[in-house]
Amino acid sequence: MKKTLNIFLLCTLIIQTVSAQSPEILSIRKQVLQNAGKIMTEYSEFLSLPNVAADPVNLQKNAAFIMKMMDQRGIKNVQLLNAGTANVPPAVYGEVIVPGATQTLIFYAHYDGQPVNPSQWAKGLEPFKPALFTNALQNGGSLISFPANGKFERDWRIYARGSSDDKAGVAAILNAYDALIKSGLKPGSNIKFFFEGEEEEGSTHLNEILDKHKSLLKSDLWIICDGPVHQSGKKQVVFGVRGDTHLDLTVYASKRPLHSGQYGNWAPNPAMMLARLLASMKDENGKVTIKGFYDDVIALSPAERKALLEVPSVDQQMKNELGISAVEIPGTSLSEAINLPSLNINGIQSGNVGKLATNQIPTTATAVIDLRLVLGNDWKRQQQKVIDHIKAQGYYVTDKDPIDEERKDHGKIIKIVPEEGYNAQRTTMDLPIVQKIIAAIKTTTTGQVVLQPTMGGSLPLYLFEKHLNAKTITIPVVNHDNNQHAENENLRIGNFFDGIETMGSLMLLK
Amino acid sequence: MKKTLNIFLLCTLIIQTVSAQSPEILSIRKQVLQNAGKIMTEYSEFLSLPNVAADPVNLQKNAAFIMKMMDQRGIKNVQLLNAGTANVPPAVYGEVIVPGATQTLIFYAHYDGQPVNPSQWAKGLEPFKPALFTNALQNGGSLISFPANGKFERDWRIYARGSSDDKAGVAAILNAYDALIKSGLKPGSNIKFFFEGEEEEGSTHLNEILDKHKSLLKSDLWIICDGPVHQSGKKQVVFGVRGDTHLDLTVYASKRPLHSGQYGNWAPNPAMMLARLLASMKDENGKVTIKGFYDDVIALSPAERKALLEVPSVDQQMKNELGISAVEIPGTSLSEAINLPSLNINGIQSGNVGKLATNQIPTTATAVIDLRLVLGNDWKRQQQKVIDHIKAQGYYVTDKDPIDEERKDHGKIIKIVPEEGYNAQRTTMDLPIVQKIIAAIKTTTTGQVVLQPTMGGSLPLYLFEKHLNAKTITIPVVNHDNNQHAENENLRIGNFFDGIETMGSLMLLK
Repeated sequence: MKKTLNIFLLCTLIIQTVSAQSPEILSIRKQVLQNAGKIMTEYSEFLSLPNVAADPVNLQKNAAFIMKMMDQRGIKNVQLLNAGTANVPPAVYGEVIVPGATQTLIFYAHYDGQPVNPSQWAKGLEPFKPALFTNALQNGGSLISFPANGKFERDWRIYARGSSDDKAGVAAILNAYDALIKSGLKPGSNIKFFFEGEEEEGSTHLNEILDKHKSLLKSDLWIICDGPVHQSGKKQVVFGVRGDTHLDLTVYASKRPLHSGQYGNWAPNPAMMLARLLASMKDENGKVTIKGFYDDVIALSPAERKALLEVPSVDQQMKNELGISAVEIPGTSLSEAINLPSLNINGIQSGNVGKLATNQIPTTATAVIDLRLVLGNDWKRQQQKVIDHIKAQGYYVTDKDPIDEERKDHGKIIKIVPEEGYNAQRTTMDLPIVQKIIAAIKTTTTGQVVLQPTMGGSLPLYLFEKHLNAKTITIPVVNHDNNQHAENENLRIGNFFDGIETMGSLMLLK
Repeated sequence: MKKTLNIFLLCTLIIQTVSAQSPEILSIRKQVLQNAGKIMTEYSEFLSLPNVAADPVNLQKNAAFIMKMMDQRGIKNVQLLNAGTANVPPAVYGEVIVPGATQTLIFYAHYDGQPVNPSQWAKGLEPFKPALFTNALQNGGSLISFPANGKFERDWRIYARGSSDDKAGVAAILNAYDALIKSGLKPGSNIKFFFEGEEEEGSTHLNEILDKHKSLLKSDLWIICDGPVHQSGKKQVVFGVRGDTHLDLTVYASKRPLHSGQYGNWAPNPAMMLARLLASMKDENGKVTIKGFYDDVIALSPAERKALLEVPSVDQQMKNELGISAVEIPGTSLSEAINLPSLNINGIQSGNVGKLATNQIPTTATAVIDLRLVLGNDWKRQQQKVIDHIKAQGYYVTDKDPIDEERKDHGKIIKIVPEEGYNAQRTTMDLPIVQKIIAAIKTTTTGQVVLQPTMGGSLPLYLFEKHLNAKTITIPVVNHDNNQHAENENLRIGNFFDGIETMGSLMLLK
């Protein structure tokens, strides 16, 4: 049995050596494959802990689980970093001080996940019951048990909330350190670990945590392990992120739901009002029509523009994969699109559809809109542009349920709840340490390393600049087709194992 | 104890005599008030039986309960009338043949209810746990137990699905017969009872039931007890109904949900597509912009126009009550609006809102739209106008989930599922039997009896004309502010008791 396994490992090593560059990375790979069963069992246990903001008790259990993982790996000074405000999910901290090291790298990931609506997950899947499949569901994957021989295929997927975003980051980082030590290797820098618990809630208290623990968090570079690798499957170094903020919109009509026959065409319909309002925000070519929406944008530098040109085009691949033949702004590439501020509807709801539909005029209609920001945008100013647009459509704007007096005075009433947000951030490409990072990633692959001026997603990286005067660089590891932020979130095993190598290469960096 | 009750009854009778006209109605009223405890206990038991289409087992229990109610009242020939198609909720039939009677009246109500979404009901309320309140929720009503003394106040409300629509019809009819017999009175006509179980599903198999039991269902007039009395609180005779049909619309975007940051502004957003599509169907003045939508309408007759002018205006009252200050088509009265075909959004859903909202681009967006029809409209032609409009907006229309090939060929894809429907119906006002009906209702009130050419709501009354060559007239009993078809459906006790008198007056008619 053991012999078979070793032969398998050998074959895998030979096949995979083609794309591997350094003997250190090969040692890490060997460790990972030998311990794959243990790694995956531990990961599955981690994914079984619910990690949504609405469930603070379980968030604490996640933090405790990470502390245990760190202790087991011999990481020192393990502790929870609390915010000044009470009842904020803590960050988990740990460190490894390396004698003679001249620099300090701090590895970031987050352990909290997006909300879940279990009814939207595929039949048999539950967000917090990790399930192993032979491939992605959309590729015909089927459910399997964890293999007794600890042999995991690269195309297998594990389904659970947080499997990709971003418990994969936590696990890739901690398993990279484990594999490195077990291979008899030594980190090239001092290493710190920082795992946040409030990222999907907008990192509202991260500023407090950073301020409060400033000296502990001193470093030469933050390495952010979050987001997916490039859609081409190539490894990726990301220099910036978009900012993000939201607005919750609720249009009010009749105080009580009405029979659509008795009052249809007379009483206002909030779903139709909201549809008209949302439609007024974009033209038929997908361009946002809100006044000044594309103002304030700081253009890419020549180096960033050059890098952007070298990003492989995946537009046709993604169209095929997603089953779409048109894009929102005709003629705009995905690379160009994520370098623009965006307005996107996350959700809309009024009355009921499907089997619950009734012949009614609903009382309210609600939408959540998501504003992504690029460098130069200010999140509060961007929200205000949307609010001003809504007012220009004749709406009376309030921040709570309208009272009778307001209902009497205004034909069109909307409640707008602006959520917290943060701005975009970009690290310049020409820093010496950034060049070392790129070189380290190159030791793990013979393929192109994609240099991405910004990713489409958001992280509150401006906070690290603002509160710690720190530089950040984002090194993603998970597959791009991971359904993160939605139902059926999943992680491809090959990406997980490659990600451990990627993180390992950075820990070796001197 | 008994004495106190009798004094109360006496006071009530004295107060209420002001608006009552005939000694027979007073006898019926006395019976109802004396038996109020029993009537309400039985009604509460009836309302405890879930009556939604998705639950056929409980629908059967509702039918059995009605049969028992009929047996207990000495109604003859009680039986279930099945459709030709299997598994259709049966109608419940019974009859009372009166020696010497020269005409037959058949009383119709339906025992099935609209779907329920318990999460939308007010805290503490459940659709099938009837609850008694001291007033409407919106008027500050509070929960109370059933009174031990059997004394129910007129402004009290009972909350449950079906409490108004239309178990109230079933119970008003059967309790009217009971009170009439117990008062020593005799029906003036042969009386038949017909309680449908599929009305809220569009009465899809009613044609089969009517055809199959044609001879049993012979009558001079169908009296339809459904819908609310006039908003002014006045009793109402309704000569027609609007037709009704629905379309389920689903817009398709990416096959899997996407991270709104990674793909926002590039991948199409189905919620925005649907918002634009729905917005294209109405202009800012609430007029439907679909080609030919207002064609085919048969104008009101001079008598109907005259009746319409005499309908009390409730527009300002309803605006106050509903907390709205604008109507959908500015300058149009409620009476005018319900004499037009309408297009109304019953529900819309894409992604999630509120606590379940995530930063995603949803895969689909769904809306249910409700088309109300007036005399002259054909429901299939009206559906087709909407479908043609959607095609004219550049949509590829399918009736199932699109396959890859369709996704490749079409940028805008929509699934349209047209539901069954039926046309409007109007009975001419000048029939002699109709005049007798109006006179009978007038024996129960000194107030105006509102003559309404059509109600806004829908019933498949054209089927009675088509399959039985029968005339119909609609006599509603329930309160107008009853939340029928939505959460927190309720019945005002005063309306229920008055409704029993109304039905009794019709049974006395010779």
